[in-house]
Amino acid sequence: MDRENEYKLLDSLFDELFPLCRSITGYGIEASMEIISRYMPLQFDRVKSGTQVFDWQVPPQWNFCRARLWDPNGNVVCDTNINNLHVVSYSEPVDQFLTLDELLPHLHSLPDMPEAIPYVTSYYKRTWGFCLKHSDKQMLQPGRYRVLIESEFDPEGGVPFAQTTLEGENSKEILLSSYLCHPSLANNELSGPLVLLGLYNRLSKWPTRHYSYRFLLNPETIGSLCFLYKNYQSLSDNLEAGLILTCLGGDVDTLRYKASRKGNTTYDQLANHLASHKQLRYVDFTPLHGSDERQYCAPGFNLPVAQVSRSLNIAKVPYHTSLDNKESMNMARIIQSIDELEKLLQLGEVAGVAVNQSPFGEPQLGKRGLYPNMNTLEHTNKSSDNLVDGRTKLNAILTILSDSDGTKSMVQIAESLNLTLFQMVPIIKELEQHGLIKFNTGEVL
Amino acid sequence: MDRENEYKLLDSLFDELFPLCRSITGYGIEASMEIISRYMPLQFDRVKSGTQVFDWQVPPQWNFCRARLWDPNGNVVCDTNINNLHVVSYSEPVDQFLTLDELLPHLHSLPDMPEAIPYVTSYYKRTWGFCLKHSDKQMLQPGRYRVLIESEFDPEGGVPFAQTTLEGENSKEILLSSYLCHPSLANNELSGPLVLLGLYNRLSKWPTRHYSYRFLLNPETIGSLCFLYKNYQSLSDNLEAGLILTCLGGDVDTLRYKASRKGNTTYDQLANHLASHKQLRYVDFTPLHGSDERQYCAPGFNLPVAQVSRSLNIAKVPYHTSLDNKESMNMARIIQSIDELEKLLQLGEVAGVAVNQSPFGEPQLGKRGLYPNMNTLEHTNKSSDNLVDGRTKLNAILTILSDSDGTKSMVQIAESLNLTLFQMVPIIKELEQHGLIKFNTGEVL
Amino acid sequence: MDRENEYKLLDSLFDELFPLCRSITGYGIEASMEIISRYMPLQFDRVKSGTQVFDWQVPPQWNFCRARLWDPNGNVVCDTNINNLHVVSYSEPVDQFLTLDELLPHLHSLPDMPEAIPYVTSYYKRTWGFCLKHSDKQMLQPGRYRVLIESEFDPEGGVPFAQTTLEGENSKEILLSSYLCHPSLANNELSGPLVLLGLYNRLSKWPTRHYSYRFLLNPETIGSLCFLYKNYQSLSDNLEAGLILTCLGGDVDTLRYKASRKGNTTYDQLANHLASHKQLRYVDFTPLHGSDERQYCAPGFNLPVAQVSRSLNIAKVPYHTSLDNKESMNMARIIQSIDELEKLLQLGEVAGVAVNQSPFGEPQLGKRGLYPNMNTLEHTNKSSDNLVDGRTKLNAILTILSDSDGTKSMVQIAESLNLTLFQMVPIIKELEQHGLIKFNTGEVL
Repeated sequence: MDRENEYKLLDSLFDELFPLCRSITGYGIEASMEIISRYMPLQFDRVKSGTQVFDWQVPPQWNFCRARLWDPNGNVVCDTNINNLHVVSYSEPVDQFLTLDELLPHLHSLPDMPEAIPYVTSYYKRTWGFCLKHSDKQMLQPGRYRVLIESEFDPEGGVPFAQTTLEGENSKEILLSSYLCHPSLANNELSGPLVLLGLYNRLSKWPTRHYSYRFLLNPETIGSLCFLYKNYQSLSDNLEAGLILTCLGGDVDTLRYKASRKGNTTYDQLANHLASHKQLRYVDFTPLHGSDERQYCAPGFNLPVAQVSRSLNIAKVPYHTSLDNKESMNMARIIQSIDELEKLLQLGEVAGVAVNQSPFGEPQLGKRGLYPNMNTLEHTNKSSDNLVDGRTKLNAILTILSDSDGTKSMVQIAESLNLTLFQMVPIIKELEQHGLIKFNTGEVL
Repeated sequence: MDRENEYKLLDSLFDELFPLCRSITGYGIEASMEIISRYMPLQFDRVKSGTQVFDWQVPPQWNFCRARLWDPNGNVVCDTNINNLHVVSYSEPVDQFLTLDELLPHLHSLPDMPEAIPYVTSYYKRTWGFCLKHSDKQMLQPGRYRVLIESEFDPEGGVPFAQTTLEGENSKEILLSSYLCHPSLANNELSGPLVLLGLYNRLSKWPTRHYSYRFLLNPETIGSLCFLYKNYQSLSDNLEAGLILTCLGGDVDTLRYKASRKGNTTYDQLANHLASHKQLRYVDFTPLHGSDERQYCAPGFNLPVAQVSRSLNIAKVPYHTSLDNKESMNMARIIQSIDELEKLLQLGEVAGVAVNQSPFGEPQLGKRGLYPNMNTLEHTNKSSDNLVDGRTKLNAILTILSDSDGTKSMVQIAESLNLTLFQMVPIIKELEQHGLIKFNTGEVL
Repeated sequence: MDRENEYKLLDSLFDELFPLCRSITGYGIEASMEIISRYMPLQFDRVKSGTQVFDWQVPPQWNFCRARLWDPNGNVVCDTNINNLHVVSYSEPVDQFLTLDELLPHLHSLPDMPEAIPYVTSYYKRTWGFCLKHSDKQMLQPGRYRVLIESEFDPEGGVPFAQTTLEGENSKEILLSSYLCHPSLANNELSGPLVLLGLYNRLSKWPTRHYSYRFLLNPETIGSLCFLYKNYQSLSDNLEAGLILTCLGGDVDTLRYKASRKGNTTYDQLANHLASHKQLRYVDFTPLHGSDERQYCAPGFNLPVAQVSRSLNIAKVPYHTSLDNKESMNMARIIQSIDELEKLLQLGEVAGVAVNQSPFGEPQLGKRGLYPNMNTLEHTNKSSDNLVDGRTKLNAILTILSDSDGTKSMVQIAESLNLTLFQMVPIIKELEQHGLIKFNTGEVL
C-alpha cells in the first residue's frame, strides 16, 4: 500500500467511524471494532457484565438507541441523531415531562465555552442527562419539557476488546493499544485506532521482527482492566514494552512520550535517547492523568507500558467537547505519527540488551573481515584490511562486544560512544549476522 | 494527667532521684529504678557479674557507702554525703593516711574550670580517687591526710536493667531507651529517664498504636550490651526503629537527631524530613562519641537505633561536672522534649512503608466517595463529587496508591508531592480506613 | 640483593634478551623464558598448535632462522642477523628472485618516519615480507632481487607460557603478568618482564603476605588466552586483582594505571586513591587498545585485571619501530617502576575489605591499651592512657571497627577519615595483631 492509498483508507475510515455512538459497552463500540476488523484480523473477546475484575465490577451493557429533548413548544432541543454528545453516556431510559426547574439538574453545558457541547459520562452511578451548548441552555424558557431517552441495560452483556498479533522471532512481545469508546470525538478517540491500523499495515511488511507485536483495541480503563484480567500472566512473562496510542492527530511538531512507571524500560531509554536528539518530547510517568497506561502501570502490575500522543493545545481545542472534531484534528499528522512510531519501533528492535556470543576474550575479528589482519603502524587508522575510517567502526564493534554482557542496553552503548542508535544500526546488524551478538536472550554474563 | 500535673510529677521525681549515688551497678541504680517503677510497670532483669557479654566481662557489683578525705588538721576536704561526685566511681575500699605527695595522683580536678567538681569513673581498672574543685585542690597544704572509702565489690552481683512494653497492632517494635548510671548529674542523666516516663504516659493514652513501644532503662554501655545479650534476637526480628534519649533538658530550641548507622530507617527518613522543615536538627551517625546507640549500631548488630538530645552549650555547661545541675538544666525543656518526641512518634506511625491493598489497576475510588462519579470537564477540579480543591486530595490519593508498592516510605511520597507528612496524615488515615493501604506488612509488590 | 646489584642484574639481562628474535611461538620466546628462569623458578606450560581456544585456533609454531634480501647487485638490503625487525613476523619460507615491482608489495616502511624500521606481524593470515627504513626503500633500483626467508611452520608446536607463585596466608591471589613476544624492542617489550622479575625478588623477601602472588610470562593476546584456557576456573575462584605490566621504562614521572573493566576492584580503588594524591595517573578501562587486560576483562571473564605502564611520548618514540631501543628507554625508570609497584602491592595488602572480628557492640579497647581506662574530661584528648593526640588514633580505630562490616574497603575508610591509606597502615596492623580485624574473609556482617 503506497502512502496515498494509506491516507485515503484512513481518511474514509475516519468518516465511517465518527458518527457511531460508542460507549464502553454496547452496539457502538462493537460495530466500530467490526468495521476495523475488515483491515486487520482482529480476534474478539469480552468479559461478562457482573464479573468482578480486580476492584471493579463489570457494568451491565448499555444498549442505546436515541435520546431527545423537546421544549414546551415542541421544538427539539437535543437529539442524538444530530450529535451523539447530546446524551450523558450510560443514561437510564426516561420518558416523562418535567418543568424547567426539574430539568435543569440534568442539563450539562460549559459556561466558559458557550458554543461547545460537552461529553459527559456516568458509568457507575445511575443517572440520566443531556449535554448542550451553554448558549442554547441560556435560551430555555420555563414550561413543560419532554424527555425521551431510549436505552436499556443488559445484565447479560459485557465489555468487549479485540486484538491481533504479528509474530516475531522470539517470545518477547510489544503491546500497541488504543481505546475505542468515545462517540463522535476525533483526536481524543479515532486518531489512536487509525494509527494502530496504520502501524499494523507497516509492521506486517517488515522482512523480520525480533519481537512479536500485539495490537489491541478496548474501551478505556474498564477495557484495559478486562484485557489484563484475561491476559496478565502472559504479559507478565513476555512483555518487553507497550505503547498506549492516544491523541495522535494533533497539529504539533513532536510526539510526546510519557514513560512507564518503571522509567527505565528499553523503550523508555530509547525515547529518552531520541528526546536528547530533539526527535520527541519525554515526560515521566504520572498516575494523575493519562489513559490506559494508568492501569498497566498500577503497582500490582507495573508493566513496561508507556503512552504516546501528539496533543493539540487543549486550551484552544478542549478534549471531551464537540470542538474535538475532524476540522481541529489533522489527518496528515496521523500519517506523520505512523511514520515516527514505525521508526521508533524499528529502533526498538535493536535498542535493548544484546549478549556477546563469544565473550571469552576478544573474538578473532580478523577472520571475519572485521579487523586488520596485518598488525602495523600503518593500520592503526583502519577498521579492517580495506576500511580506512580512523577506526570509528572498529571502536564501535569493540565497545559493543565489551559492553554486551546482558546488563547494558544498546541505547546506553550508543550514548557511551556519542553516536545515535540510528547511526549504529548497520554495525549492530552486521554483528548479529556474524552471530557475535544476540538480542533478547535474557542471559547475563 | 494534665500538663500541670505532668510537670509537677517530673519535677518532684527529679528531686528524689538526684541525690542517689548511682553507678553502673549497685544500690544507687537499683533504688532509682525502683522509684521510677512506681509510675510505669517495669520488669527488672540483670546479667550476673563475671558473665562474658560479647567482648566484655560483666564487672563485680560496686556497693558504695561513703567516701571521705580529711586534711592534716582534720578538716573534711571531700565527703560524698555532700556531693556524690567527690568519689571516683568504682573506687576500691581504702582506709589509710598519706602525705600530700602520695595523695595527689588520686585527686582529680579541672584546672580550666576551677569551680567545677569533675565526674570520674574507672570501671574496668581497679583504682581509687577523689574529685574536687581545682580551687580547693590548690589550697591543700603538705601533711598527713586521712582517706576513708567505704565500698565493696560483690562478685555475686550484676548489671541491672528494667523495661516495659505498650503493645501495638503488630509485632513491629519501637525501642525507647535511656541510661541511669550517673550520680547527681542533671541534663546528662535524669533528663532521659524523665522524658522516657513522660512518653510512656502519653503513649499509653493513644487510642491505637501500629507499633509496640518498648521502654528501657539501663546503665550506659555495659547495660545496653547486657540488654542486647538477652534480647538481640527479638530486636533483630522486630525492631523497626529505636531512640536513645539523652540530655533532653538543655535550654535550646530544637531537638538534635543523630541518625542510625543504617542512615535510611523509617525514623531517619522522618527526621530528615522534619529537619528540612526546620523542626529538628539532623546529624549523621558517628561511632566516635554519643551514648548507647554506639552499641546498638555496632556492625554485628547494625540495629535501626538513633539518638535524640537537646544539648546545652557544653562550652558553657560542661557535662560530667558538678555544673550539670538542675539550675543549668530547664524542666520546661523536658516537657517540650516530650511534646516534640510524642509528635515524632505519632508521625512515625504513618511514616513508613505502606502497601496498596488493591494494586491491580486503579481501585474504583468513585464507589468509596474518593473520586467524582460523573466524568465531565467541570469535574477536573474536584477530588470527589462534593470536594472542589483543585484535585489536591485526589492527586495525593493517586500518588500514594501508585507509589505504595512496598519499597517507598510515606515520607518519600510526601516529599515527592511537596507536602509535609503532617499535612498528609488525614488522607493516609482515610485510605487506611477504606482498607486501601496497610502499613508494616513487609510485603513488596 | 641491594639496589646496585638489582640494577646490574636487570641491565645485563636486558642486553642478553634484546637480540633474540621472539614471536608468539618458537625458539626465540622459549629461549627468553629459559634465560629468565635462571632468576625465578618458572614452571613452563604450552597449548598445542591447532587447539581451539575460545574463539581462536592456536597457530602452528613459527620456527624462524634468518631472512635476507639482496639487491640486483648482490648487496644486502635486509638481514635479520643485523636487525630482527627486518622480517614480517610469521613470514612463510621463501627462496626466489623477483623484480622490484613484484617485491614492493612485500616491503613495509613508514613514510612519516623515514629512519625507523617498522615492526610488522601477520600471525593469522599467511604472507611474507620485509621491513626497512623508508629512506632505504626509496633508494631501491629496478632489477632482480633475491629473497631468502628461512622459516618453517610446525603444526606439532604450541604457544608457551611460564609462571611461578609466591604463596601467601590465604587462597586469594594477585596476578602479575607481562608479555614476551616482541623481538628487539625495549620499552614495549623487555621493560615488563624485567619489572616482573624485580617484583618477584622484592616480594620474596616480604616477612608476610596476605595474598598469594602469581607471576606470569606469555606471548601477548593468544598467550593470555591460552593461560586463561587452562587456568580460568582457578582465577575466577581466587583472583583478587591483577596487573598487566607493560612499557614500564618510559622516561616520565608517574605511573599510569588503567583500571579493570569492573572499575571498583580493591586495586582500582587503591589506584584512584593514590591518583587523588598525585602518586599515579588513573584512567578508566577501555577495550579499544592496551595489552592482555583486554582478554582478562572480556565480558565472559570480567576478571579484576588492570594494566600499569610508564609510557614514553609515543609521538617522539613510536612503539613497534626500531626507535624503541635501550637508548630511548631508561633503565633507572625500570627500577623506579619496581619501587612504585612494590609500594602499591604493599598498600594493596591492607587496601581491601576487612571484617571486624568483635562486631557485637564496641570491643573493650581499654583492656588492650587502645582506650583510656579512666573516663574523665581530661582524657577526651587521649587515644589511650598514655597517648595524647587529640584522639586521632582512637577515632581511626573506632571508625575502622564501625565500618569493617565486609562491605567497605580500607581505602574507602581512609578517605572517609581524610587520611591516606599509607598513614593508616600502622593502625591497621595493630588492629590485625590484636585480632580485632581480619582481611579477605569474604564474610559480610
